[in-house]
Amino acid sequence: MERQLKEISTWMEQEAIDFAFLTSTDNIFYLSGFYSDPHERLLALILFPKEEPILVCPAMEQNDARNAGWQYDIIGYSDTDNPWEAIQEKVAKKASAKRIAVEKEHMNVQRYEALKQYFPAVVDFLPAEEKLNEVRMVKSEQELAKIREACKWADYAIEVGCSEIAEGKTEMEVLAAIEYELKKKGIGKMSFSTMVLTGKNGASPHGNPGSTKIKKGDLVLFDLGVVVDGYCSDITRTVAYCDINDDQKNIYDTVLKAQLAALDASKPGAKCMDIDLAARNVIKDAGFGEYFPHRLGHGLGISVHEYPSLTSTNPLVLKTGMVYTIEPGIYVPNVAGVRIEDDVYVTEDGVEILTKFPKELQVIS
Amino acid sequence: MERQLKEISTWMEQEAIDFAFLTSTDNIFYLSGFYSDPHERLLALILFPKEEPILVCPAMEQNDARNAGWQYDIIGYSDTDNPWEAIQEKVAKKASAKRIAVEKEHMNVQRYEALKQYFPAVVDFLPAEEKLNEVRMVKSEQELAKIREACKWADYAIEVGCSEIAEGKTEMEVLAAIEYELKKKGIGKMSFSTMVLTGKNGASPHGNPGSTKIKKGDLVLFDLGVVVDGYCSDITRTVAYCDINDDQKNIYDTVLKAQLAALDASKPGAKCMDIDLAARNVIKDAGFGEYFPHRLGHGLGISVHEYPSLTSTNPLVLKTGMVYTIEPGIYVPNVAGVRIEDDVYVTEDGVEILTKFPKELQVIS
Repeated sequence: MERQLKEISTWMEQEAIDFAFLTSTDNIFYLSGFYSDPHERLLALILFPKEEPILVCPAMEQNDARNAGWQYDIIGYSDTDNPWEAIQEKVAKKASAKRIAVEKEHMNVQRYEALKQYFPAVVDFLPAEEKLNEVRMVKSEQELAKIREACKWADYAIEVGCSEIAEGKTEMEVLAAIEYELKKKGIGKMSFSTMVLTGKNGASPHGNPGSTKIKKGDLVLFDLGVVVDGYCSDITRTVAYCDINDDQKNIYDTVLKAQLAALDASKPGAKCMDIDLAARNVIKDAGFGEYFPHRLGHGLGISVHEYPSLTSTNPLVLKTGMVYTIEPGIYVPNVAGVRIEDDVYVTEDGVEILTKFPKELQVIS
Repeated sequence: MERQLKEISTWMEQEAIDFAFLTSTDNIFYLSGFYSDPHERLLALILFPKEEPILVCPAMEQNDARNAGWQYDIIGYSDTDNPWEAIQEKVAKKASAKRIAVEKEHMNVQRYEALKQYFPAVVDFLPAEEKLNEVRMVKSEQELAKIREACKWADYAIEVGCSEIAEGKTEMEVLAAIEYELKKKGIGKMSFSTMVLTGKNGASPHGNPGSTKIKKGDLVLFDLGVVVDGYCSDITRTVAYCDINDDQKNIYDTVLKAQLAALDASKPGAKCMDIDLAARNVIKDAGFGEYFPHRLGHGLGISVHEYPSLTSTNPLVLKTGMVYTIEPGIYVPNVAGVRIEDDVYVTEDGVEILTKFPKELQVIS
């Protein structure tokens, strides 16, 4: 935390930024250790190049921030206070305000206008994400340990899911069983809404689990993740319930080949686009190009989707310490939907695969 | 949907707004019937005073939008497209762009800057929420039916929770059992992270369930909600496990009295602040004023927290058709935390209580 705060301060000094006004739950957790989702209420972390930072949060969360280890100043406010006046006053004591950084992908227009109103001297609003993305992209050993743990639980969740598959069970029944097992064991939060899709439902890359019953010959797709100490995992496996036909097998084999090609291409110095294209070309060559409509993957950490994006056009170069997903998929309406997703950590000369559930086609019967 | 779109169009005509560019999942669901959370990808609904609307969504969700009943134009884009050029072109055919409305509480600065770049003639950005809040605040019969159903499931969830309370069980075990029962029965989504807090943990208004074990003499607080067809419920009940002491009882009785006072004050024509103060004064008079640090409640519908906010200073007048929560609480560190929350619907002359689980102190043993 102290190291990360220091990195941001140094950047602010270099860029002559008077203060940074951060507003996203995830960046504030990263820099303060305090996790809070205040819904529509204002949560902010104000950073300066040389002065101590200030946290802004609802008064009723002040104690939680202290318990999370926040040792600097806090501006607490109640539902009937206007926090902006206190912010203006405290900031004025620490900095002038001509050049400031905000999270342009997170800060809403209302708060942007409030900043302009209370700090009328500000001339430049810079995107704080530029530096934050770069810093957050490379994980520390402590962060990696949490992601590893989250990946172990994701593997376990898939195991539970497979053991629950049976003729006539609904997607929601299987999903309920998976989350029950995890929550009973103390897992408080999934990374996103767990997905269990069977048969034709798997052919929508963003389908919703429902009352469809599993039947023999279905491919069953699981996409889920677990949060451990604020860090996410994200895994997808597609398994067969009893015998599947040749079209389904062909699609499965193609996705697996594509996924392995992307893993193979992953190493420091490669570009994001190289990794995407390694998988995309396999799928294209097999004649399924139009059925892979999404990017290959995304960064993973405190946010389940974080910087960078692994698309076919992103020239960003991979660095040791990055964690991202590799998740090619083929979705042929009325035939089959298959996606296989791993989380990987970039080592000195390749990647370590953090999700370990087998990828050779698992046939449940 | 058509009625709501019409209301917004009429407002735009009256206000001489060239187009509205809406970006929040909830408002887009309200006006289009299409529910999508595209994470960092752009989702937008463009409305005009007299022309047909346009939906902007990831290409891979176009089919889902059609299946949800969207019959107008769609701009679909892939992860490597720039959707703004297509937006610029299509909008230019339908409208000039001097005065536009955006969701200022939702739209981020990056998209605001993109709008300014692609529509350089825009002079005024108006807050679309003003009208949207007003329209969404009053629920239709169809909306009410969904909220009623969501409330029934919330009651059931509390019932399950109570039946799971036992010496030595952890908060997470009880939570897991509640969600398992709901999901098995097809409930896909909770309104927010379910809360089960026992003993001293209940004294934090935003505590996190964990491995604390329930023991005799604890108050156990449940705060949860269920989503049915896109509409939320939100209920809180606090129950006793075996005998509790007089301090705990006194706090419980005070919160219940406050909750009933707020219910009693609720009717068309009353102000939000009247309702808040009805409860707040009971708590203050009992000497617990400083331990009730949050507003009384909030609107409820597609969003679990929506307009309006029931605070001690909001002069907004209640109208027939509104749905909101009444949730006073007292949190005395190391003694007890009690909150009691109902969802209510404003009728012609009072309110109908939609959450029906008993509020007299339930003692589980």
